Amino acid sequence: MSGIWKHNIGLSIFGESHGDAVGITISSLPPGFEVDLDYIQREMNRRRPGQNPWSTPRNENDEIKILSGVFKGKTTGAPLTMIIENKNIKSKDYDLIKDLVRPGHADHTAFVKYNGYQDYRGGGHFSGRLTAGLVFAGALCKSILSAKNILIGGQITKIGMVRDHRLENVSMEDVRALLERDFPTLSLETAEEMKSAIREAKDDLDSIGGEIRCFALNLPAGVGNPFFDGFESILSQLIFSIPGIKGLAFGTGFKLSDMQGSTSNDAYYTKDEKILTRTNHNGGIIGGITNGMPVDFTVVVKATPSIGKLQNTINIETLENTTLSIEGRHDPCIVPRVVPVVEAVTAIAILDGMLNMF
Amino acid sequence: MSGIWKHNIGLSIFGESHGDAVGITISSLPPGFEVDLDYIQREMNRRRPGQNPWSTPRNENDEIKILSGVFKGKTTGAPLTMIIENKNIKSKDYDLIKDLVRPGHADHTAFVKYNGYQDYRGGGHFSGRLTAGLVFAGALCKSILSAKNILIGGQITKIGMVRDHRLENVSMEDVRALLERDFPTLSLETAEEMKSAIREAKDDLDSIGGEIRCFALNLPAGVGNPFFDGFESILSQLIFSIPGIKGLAFGTGFKLSDMQGSTSNDAYYTKDEKILTRTNHNGGIIGGITNGMPVDFTVVVKATPSIGKLQNTINIETLENTTLSIEGRHDPCIVPRVVPVVEAVTAIAILDGMLNMF
Amino acid sequence: MSGIWKHNIGLSIFGESHGDAVGITISSLPPGFEVDLDYIQREMNRRRPGQNPWSTPRNENDEIKILSGVFKGKTTGAPLTMIIENKNIKSKDYDLIKDLVRPGHADHTAFVKYNGYQDYRGGGHFSGRLTAGLVFAGALCKSILSAKNILIGGQITKIGMVRDHRLENVSMEDVRALLERDFPTLSLETAEEMKSAIREAKDDLDSIGGEIRCFALNLPAGVGNPFFDGFESILSQLIFSIPGIKGLAFGTGFKLSDMQGSTSNDAYYTKDEKILTRTNHNGGIIGGITNGMPVDFTVVVKATPSIGKLQNTINIETLENTTLSIEGRHDPCIVPRVVPVVEAVTAIAILDGMLNMF
Amino acid sequence: MSGIWKHNIGLSIFGESHGDAVGITISSLPPGFEVDLDYIQREMNRRRPGQNPWSTPRNENDEIKILSGVFKGKTTGAPLTMIIENKNIKSKDYDLIKDLVRPGHADHTAFVKYNGYQDYRGGGHFSGRLTAGLVFAGALCKSILSAKNILIGGQITKIGMVRDHRLENVSMEDVRALLERDFPTLSLETAEEMKSAIREAKDDLDSIGGEIRCFALNLPAGVGNPFFDGFESILSQLIFSIPGIKGLAFGTGFKLSDMQGSTSNDAYYTKDEKILTRTNHNGGIIGGITNGMPVDFTVVVKATPSIGKLQNTINIETLENTTLSIEGRHDPCIVPRVVPVVEAVTAIAILDGMLNMF
Repeated sequence: MSGIWKHNIGLSIFGESHGDAVGITISSLPPGFEVDLDYIQREMNRRRPGQNPWSTPRNENDEIKILSGVFKGKTTGAPLTMIIENKNIKSKDYDLIKDLVRPGHADHTAFVKYNGYQDYRGGGHFSGRLTAGLVFAGALCKSILSAKNILIGGQITKIGMVRDHRLENVSMEDVRALLERDFPTLSLETAEEMKSAIREAKDDLDSIGGEIRCFALNLPAGVGNPFFDGFESILSQLIFSIPGIKGLAFGTGFKLSDMQGSTSNDAYYTKDEKILTRTNHNGGIIGGITNGMPVDFTVVVKATPSIGKLQNTINIETLENTTLSIEGRHDPCIVPRVVPVVEAVTAIAILDGMLNMF
Repeated sequence: MSGIWKHNIGLSIFGESHGDAVGITISSLPPGFEVDLDYIQREMNRRRPGQNPWSTPRNENDEIKILSGVFKGKTTGAPLTMIIENKNIKSKDYDLIKDLVRPGHADHTAFVKYNGYQDYRGGGHFSGRLTAGLVFAGALCKSILSAKNILIGGQITKIGMVRDHRLENVSMEDVRALLERDFPTLSLETAEEMKSAIREAKDDLDSIGGEIRCFALNLPAGVGNPFFDGFESILSQLIFSIPGIKGLAFGTGFKLSDMQGSTSNDAYYTKDEKILTRTNHNGGIIGGITNGMPVDFTVVVKATPSIGKLQNTINIETLENTTLSIEGRHDPCIVPRVVPVVEAVTAIAILDGMLNMF
Repeated sequence: MSGIWKHNIGLSIFGESHGDAVGITISSLPPGFEVDLDYIQREMNRRRPGQNPWSTPRNENDEIKILSGVFKGKTTGAPLTMIIENKNIKSKDYDLIKDLVRPGHADHTAFVKYNGYQDYRGGGHFSGRLTAGLVFAGALCKSILSAKNILIGGQITKIGMVRDHRLENVSMEDVRALLERDFPTLSLETAEEMKSAIREAKDDLDSIGGEIRCFALNLPAGVGNPFFDGFESILSQLIFSIPGIKGLAFGTGFKLSDMQGSTSNDAYYTKDEKILTRTNHNGGIIGGITNGMPVDFTVVVKATPSIGKLQNTINIETLENTTLSIEGRHDPCIVPRVVPVVEAVTAIAILDGMLNMF
Repeated sequence: MSGIWKHNIGLSIFGESHGDAVGITISSLPPGFEVDLDYIQREMNRRRPGQNPWSTPRNENDEIKILSGVFKGKTTGAPLTMIIENKNIKSKDYDLIKDLVRPGHADHTAFVKYNGYQDYRGGGHFSGRLTAGLVFAGALCKSILSAKNILIGGQITKIGMVRDHRLENVSMEDVRALLERDFPTLSLETAEEMKSAIREAKDDLDSIGGEIRCFALNLPAGVGNPFFDGFESILSQLIFSIPGIKGLAFGTGFKLSDMQGSTSNDAYYTKDEKILTRTNHNGGIIGGITNGMPVDFTVVVKATPSIGKLQNTINIETLENTTLSIEGRHDPCIVPRVVPVVEAVTAIAILDGMLNMF
């Protein structure tokens, strides 16, 4: 397994759902930036479960412990390691079903890849719990980026068949409003409909997916290093590391296939010596490089695979066909908890591309 | 610029549209594999323009010249470098409009990033012509993978508003049929409708986009190295390096947000001791690791930004608002030519993940 | 700072001398290998101080805590993180002298690089204590390599002006004998003379350096990936990460400059169908690739810069010239403690190069 | 094979001694720097053979051809590719002896690693001829660094048993003087003695090695990224990629083992608000970071393995013991030609570490 991402910034992620701890090391952070633990903890809380009716009752309190890289409350430039010790673990839930690979989960692929030696409890290293480290790293990056007025925020645009409004032009106010909501939609009514859809799935012992749109405002033009390290390439590598994300589209995304060049080309104009585009169908990135317009992309999150409903599956040891009903504490919808993770990797990708400006 | 991708396999891409040559170096290829120049040239021909009514009349004959890494017709294990010398170049077309940044092209972002020193002729290093190197590398990888019966093929699933059929289950025969067509759709009538749509856009001095679905069959389970080097992450980094691609979705893609866990989970079963899934909504990848089902993903290709229609833009030197009408030889639709490029990076990502099996 | 090394295996090192903990994450270890904590702890003990008259009285007990990557006593294939919590810390020793940069230490260069935000206590992230993580990782790699009969061991060949014998041909017995000694020389008398030299330096409030020769036996031919990732290149990157090492030479090393091709060329012969060389002046590596003969190299370790003697230096804040006498607990000679670190990075480099054979 | 080095700057090297061409691609060069072809060609000429009595009569004229990355005489920021086509090749020299592995050469190790598919003519990809690309890249980096007054130059300090003077303090004048000499020693008499030693080896059908010391002046303090990417680590990876180099030592090097901390610690003092050290035993690097003093290191170059004398070896196909006498054109001493290669990789490592300052 390759828990290491080495770019301008480096990430090293580790841990298992039911092991001793999960955590992350962030390498090459710029020195001298304040580490605001309250802000970071608030960001962590956005991701952690057990807080509301639509998420798993496993109450992970995600208490962070910084082991290195911070001195007198500031980043030192040395690797910054954070761990969260695992508490409130009920491993027995999982031991009974270890050979019954859960459809949609990595049980089968991990078994093949690691010859059966993987930690299978609660998904082990494949657990969504690993993303706590990403949120921590992202919170640090976000607060560093805020020194340049860069703001990153996500919107839940779809849960099941319920859709929120689509903004054509996004403002700082829009993003700030989204960041203040624990269920970040533009319309409060839509949020209620989405929550109903989640409750319904829960009542069915089922789960439900959705879409998240993410904005990053006030980036300078010039971030990204094509050919292979264009901003879309770097961001996508991180985005697809997030469990459950199966699609990523920039700007107008798949709807671009409906359009003609004369409309999908974002026409340039200048205003007060600033270069702007009338539209932003390209999501703020042209040729792999940011153009100064808002970075804007959408991801799809599949329905969480852990469901109470009876499913067909196999016993991976005996290869017999069988059925499985997953017991225990599960989210009927992980979309709201994925929002801060998507924001986090966006912040990491941006700081990575702007590192020499800090 | 970072023209280098270093993974198990390495790629180093270089060249400009109107410079002396474009090319690629491929590092860490396994030794002893035959380099079938006829096959490679046929693959190159699928990408090159000037062959049919719907593409640019610039007739690049894309004649490859191998400089290193091949001895007695076989790979040696040493870096393999291929160049294509640029001929049939009309640089004057571009010199007149160099300060008028073309909307949708990288002219503006490259100017900002490289302080005006970039080669602006025909898009320079940002030209789609650079993908010739990827197709070459992909052809080599494809022929190496064929030793393990792995087959990769793309389908044009959408051009403008015209859609081809969607296969639920893909077979070797389906992929072979697609590979034999120079306009690879399942339905021949759809192909004609698509060509009409392209001609229409051309007559309007406009351009048109579309979608490509790509399949890779007979991969073993176990390819991909999460957390950060999962198969989706590696492939996406390469996919988003291809000019014009703005979205990527695996399996059922964005439609997964409509589904519940009980349907989007691909239920396992065994047949003749093989582990299979009834459906393939996850596109053959679970937890960043292939599961042995067909790898299946779709990309969206925006309408090529070079259009004859009058567009609003700016003069990047004077910052004045102005208009631009792009003259010269341009594709009204690049989707058919992007198909072999998408297949190529898929082959590269797969060989990269399977390198220790060769 | 770049605490990350990403190759076939990945390393991510973190911690500060007087912070909460030091540790390491090892990525991409093969799954299914037993983690023998007793063996690992014995290896750790070889490095840790406080055990004998010639090392610092700071008694770090280097108690390891594994946070992830081990399940049922075996590697899982997931990132393996180990931490050692720092205890027995007396930070006050260092606070008084923080602006007086210690000659030979990284105080000055760290101040410049990290704008004064570095953790300056006890060298912070530059402390030799960081190498505990390397020894841990090396112990794991060594025990994995032992499955292929590969044995790695170091010899103290020089302390100050005292030299140990030089082996022309090294055997498994030689290396095993070295590994059994806590002061690994071939001659026991030489060891006593070396210890005297160390005591003498200590009595002078001074310190002393030396040389370490390291052997790795039973490697297959074929390890190393030139051009840039030849075995010497990979090993050297790790070797020069070890604090205090200032030189590295393979085989006969700098004495090769005295020799002619007819003697420094290691003549081949075959015996029982095995390809061998009569001599091993090239240290088992030709063209960046192992040739099956023992890997053999020597490093020089400078005298530890922490000495009690009065030294000229500056105040880095005021830029005034001043003097400094370092108080506290220091090793008069770190060479014996560096031996297991050198062995450790050798094991890491070898496993890295052989990963696809496991 | 891994012909790719990806760091802040990227290198991709390719070619074989008797193939069509050798060359290099340099990625991530800063844009807007003049490419002075005359200067580059002069640097190339320092490396190329056939120019004087002590080197091989193979007259490679090393005519460079730039394929990309330069526009209007300046770097564009895009990958810069240079090739040298191979002319004046006599492959027959080598064909007769292909199964007789040459001692000291990579014939045996390449055979094992690449299963016999390697290009064996003239060492193939292992030929010293590959370093032409490094010298080209280094010349570019040197001329970019000269904008910051950084000067890099090498001295031949030893050929066989003949030694040149050792400078304790090196000045700009010293380095400029060395750069002006085609046999760069400080003493002209020593140069003559060295040339005699080379001629003698040649008359004996033998070869001879030596040592090169390299200086880099006017670097700022702060270059290098420990833990793993310290300046010594990065430089050493490149240095050991150069064929024939078997040892590397910084500053006072292996003689540091004779010294005590009180002498090997370079005492700080300030003069005109500049931080300096009285001595430079650490070679300008402390803790993996440059300290502003001259970077200073020495390498050992083994005697070139190609000699006319009869040698014992084996037939790699039949495994029979046999003898070999290498015919053809060979250098009796490659040390003078390695000097510009060592300077080149030093320039690359420095620009790599300072890239964000350009």
